[in-house]
Amino acid sequence: MKIKNPFFKKNNNIYLNDILKILGKNKENKKIKINDISDLSSASVNDISFISSLKYLDILKKTKAKFVIANEPHSRKIKYFCKPIIVKNVLKSIYDITKLFYPDSLNDAVDFLAVTPNIVKYKNIKFGSNVLLGNNVKIGKNTIIGHNTIIESNVKIGVSCTIGNNVLIKNSIIGNNVRILDGAVIGKKGFGFFPDKKKNIRYPHRGMVIIHDNVEIGCNNTIDRGSLSNTIIGKNTFIDNQVHIAHNVNIGNNCIITGQVGFAGSSKIGNSVMIGGQAGISGHLKIGNNVQIGGGSGVVKNISDNSKVMGYPAKDIRNFLKENK
Amino acid sequence: MKIKNPFFKKNNNIYLNDILKILGKNKENKKIKINDISDLSSASVNDISFISSLKYLDILKKTKAKFVIANEPHSRKIKYFCKPIIVKNVLKSIYDITKLFYPDSLNDAVDFLAVTPNIVKYKNIKFGSNVLLGNNVKIGKNTIIGHNTIIESNVKIGVSCTIGNNVLIKNSIIGNNVRILDGAVIGKKGFGFFPDKKKNIRYPHRGMVIIHDNVEIGCNNTIDRGSLSNTIIGKNTFIDNQVHIAHNVNIGNNCIITGQVGFAGSSKIGNSVMIGGQAGISGHLKIGNNVQIGGGSGVVKNISDNSKVMGYPAKDIRNFLKENK
Amino acid sequence: MKIKNPFFKKNNNIYLNDILKILGKNKENKKIKINDISDLSSASVNDISFISSLKYLDILKKTKAKFVIANEPHSRKIKYFCKPIIVKNVLKSIYDITKLFYPDSLNDAVDFLAVTPNIVKYKNIKFGSNVLLGNNVKIGKNTIIGHNTIIESNVKIGVSCTIGNNVLIKNSIIGNNVRILDGAVIGKKGFGFFPDKKKNIRYPHRGMVIIHDNVEIGCNNTIDRGSLSNTIIGKNTFIDNQVHIAHNVNIGNNCIITGQVGFAGSSKIGNSVMIGGQAGISGHLKIGNNVQIGGGSGVVKNISDNSKVMGYPAKDIRNFLKENK
Repeated sequence: MKIKNPFFKKNNNIYLNDILKILGKNKENKKIKINDISDLSSASVNDISFISSLKYLDILKKTKAKFVIANEPHSRKIKYFCKPIIVKNVLKSIYDITKLFYPDSLNDAVDFLAVTPNIVKYKNIKFGSNVLLGNNVKIGKNTIIGHNTIIESNVKIGVSCTIGNNVLIKNSIIGNNVRILDGAVIGKKGFGFFPDKKKNIRYPHRGMVIIHDNVEIGCNNTIDRGSLSNTIIGKNTFIDNQVHIAHNVNIGNNCIITGQVGFAGSSKIGNSVMIGGQAGISGHLKIGNNVQIGGGSGVVKNISDNSKVMGYPAKDIRNFLKENK
Repeated sequence: MKIKNPFFKKNNNIYLNDILKILGKNKENKKIKINDISDLSSASVNDISFISSLKYLDILKKTKAKFVIANEPHSRKIKYFCKPIIVKNVLKSIYDITKLFYPDSLNDAVDFLAVTPNIVKYKNIKFGSNVLLGNNVKIGKNTIIGHNTIIESNVKIGVSCTIGNNVLIKNSIIGNNVRILDGAVIGKKGFGFFPDKKKNIRYPHRGMVIIHDNVEIGCNNTIDRGSLSNTIIGKNTFIDNQVHIAHNVNIGNNCIITGQVGFAGSSKIGNSVMIGGQAGISGHLKIGNNVQIGGGSGVVKNISDNSKVMGYPAKDIRNFLKENK
Repeated sequence: MKIKNPFFKKNNNIYLNDILKILGKNKENKKIKINDISDLSSASVNDISFISSLKYLDILKKTKAKFVIANEPHSRKIKYFCKPIIVKNVLKSIYDITKLFYPDSLNDAVDFLAVTPNIVKYKNIKFGSNVLLGNNVKIGKNTIIGHNTIIESNVKIGVSCTIGNNVLIKNSIIGNNVRILDGAVIGKKGFGFFPDKKKNIRYPHRGMVIIHDNVEIGCNNTIDRGSLSNTIIGKNTFIDNQVHIAHNVNIGNNCIITGQVGFAGSSKIGNSVMIGGQAGISGHLKIGNNVQIGGGSGVVKNISDNSKVMGYPAKDIRNFLKENK
């Protein structure tokens, strides 16, 4: 099920020539409308997509997207399957195009539309003092919202949730029976930018945070929203205090993540994974189902289903214990 | 000295038959009143207690409790000293019983009784803006409370304390001359639950956080309250920023705990212990007096008095340094 | 360029005899006025300074300060270049003198002068709800300040900055185009004190936090101000969530510091340094320019320019990878 993103208004009036122009390329003769920028597997026929590595060639062969951003060497391999648009820096180009489609996905630090909730509109919901709600916030019945909590425009929260005090929620879709504890910050832009000696260039984050039913998010957690895709926390996963989850991370169902764990961007964690305190998971990894990661571990490569690992870098826990007797 | 717990109302009308019923066992013929659920050593004669491991057999032999929850194999060893109540899952049973005695020890995410303080009632206390105090909060003279800080019902704070801004304090008893710095969250429920594929079952936390005189708690710290016992910070212990202390942890006097250290549940730390930045202490450990733990260490076993350790896992610091020259 | 410190009122009426008195020494016959306490290199002719190690002897030889606090053995070596004042504990004496000059540099937990901003005074600045500003706060045009944020007296913030929600800023000078994200705590006193069995003695922190142009500070960060010198974040440095920066740390320009990194006090980080998630940097270290530090590393010694290190303790990354294949 694809969840619609209500947070970033898309510019629906983008033509291929607009894109070519910001990429510094020559215009086409024909007027071709482009609907959106998407990854290869989810792109529709009128979307523009991109390929950053040939390991995605098989996915490209099946993509519906006609136009695909690529660099020169990759272009030669993909031109049989799509119309490549050749650029020097694929990532930079993607973000320039994202900015074109979603101009407000960058500047979202404060929601000045957030005001004291209209109690008439929110029946069966219990609000603490000094709560601020943005425009068009949807909250299910029997949910409680603690003191000083800010919920920004277009956020959706399900029924029977408990949102603690001093919580900030933005760009997030939250299921039923979810608990978000005091001081958590959910849905801000990820830590992504192009370094530049004078002034780094932040890239737009048009993704969301999606939190499924029965999840618990601990105190003072920080969960960043995705850039092009979403940050997702699966059903019935419980997360302890002071955990940091970077953009695009996907965590499965029934996971147990203890205090001060950190996830770098874009890693995918399976179901029923248990992670001990202060462990760190590097970016772009795939952690299988039923994996157990010992406290303090530093995980720097993929881990297959049912493994138990520990150490820095993390290895099979039997080896770790043997070497450290 | 035992400090009375004013936070969770005990149901004083519990009979043995009520307990047998929730455990799915047959009723007794006699009406026997049970006063409370307690651990073996602090239990009174009318309390119910429990044993989860035979390493506690010596303590059981001296307990005042008549009825003791145990599993089948342990039951055979203890039946000479008490009346065992045999269950399949001791921990699950304890928490079912705790919930029976303390029905509100689970649902405490927001104190809706917290309101702007009545200044007439709190003389000689300086309040910042937007402070919220629950019912029956006691604050000693010359204490200051920063802006946006929330102090929930029944909390006690001593004299000459400094509570910073954006602090949340619940289920806590705080001594004199204590400093709690900005953004700290003190006394929420610990990260304890029974995993269940559909919907994890949180267990009740009827304990408190007890902070003794002259303590300093750093910014954005999280200190969870105990489940059946208390989380305790000893006199004159200083704790730096972003430290996480899980439920039931006991820290002694005169300790120095630097930034981003984490404690898993139920560990007991001696007096005059120094812990370097980002070190992690696993659960259920005993760290002696005058111990020094190097920054970044991962402590996974007990440490005896006067030791200096470092490493992951932590070992004698001389060995660590020798191996890493 | 030296930035003036507007935060701690200096007592301008201190004589040498006042200092000798608090150090428990005999008065001089002459009335000699002392202007300030400073380190050897920045001291003016009427300042008092100090030497804690003979490795600073060359700097002492060039100091303008006449009076220098030292212990007995060092005193014999330095008496040819200045007038030593011999004490048993140099650090303790420095802080006693600092307290004499800056009596309010210790008690700064809450700024009770902070109130709702006078919108007439702050044109072209956008404020969220419940913002509190201290006395004499200066904010440049086109800066936005999020909900519930507290900015204490005398803080300066440049133009086009974005300050998030629930932020606390004190004793800080902030440049242009800086972003400080939600929940950050900037400028509180460092974690410095003299341990005492009865009651630790906090030492005064008269320093500031200086944040230069184009910096980004992540959510729930804690950045402590300096004791005698300043904590400094250089131009265009980006810092991710949940990072802790202790007092007196200096970070260069164009650095990239990812989530949950921690810096102990007084370390100096060069320009263009990249630090991976959860790495820790010990105190009083010098990290060169263009250094890359892998995620999870524990850095315990100086690192020279252009090095790539990883591990705990951190070593050349090629050795780390070779040993951990």
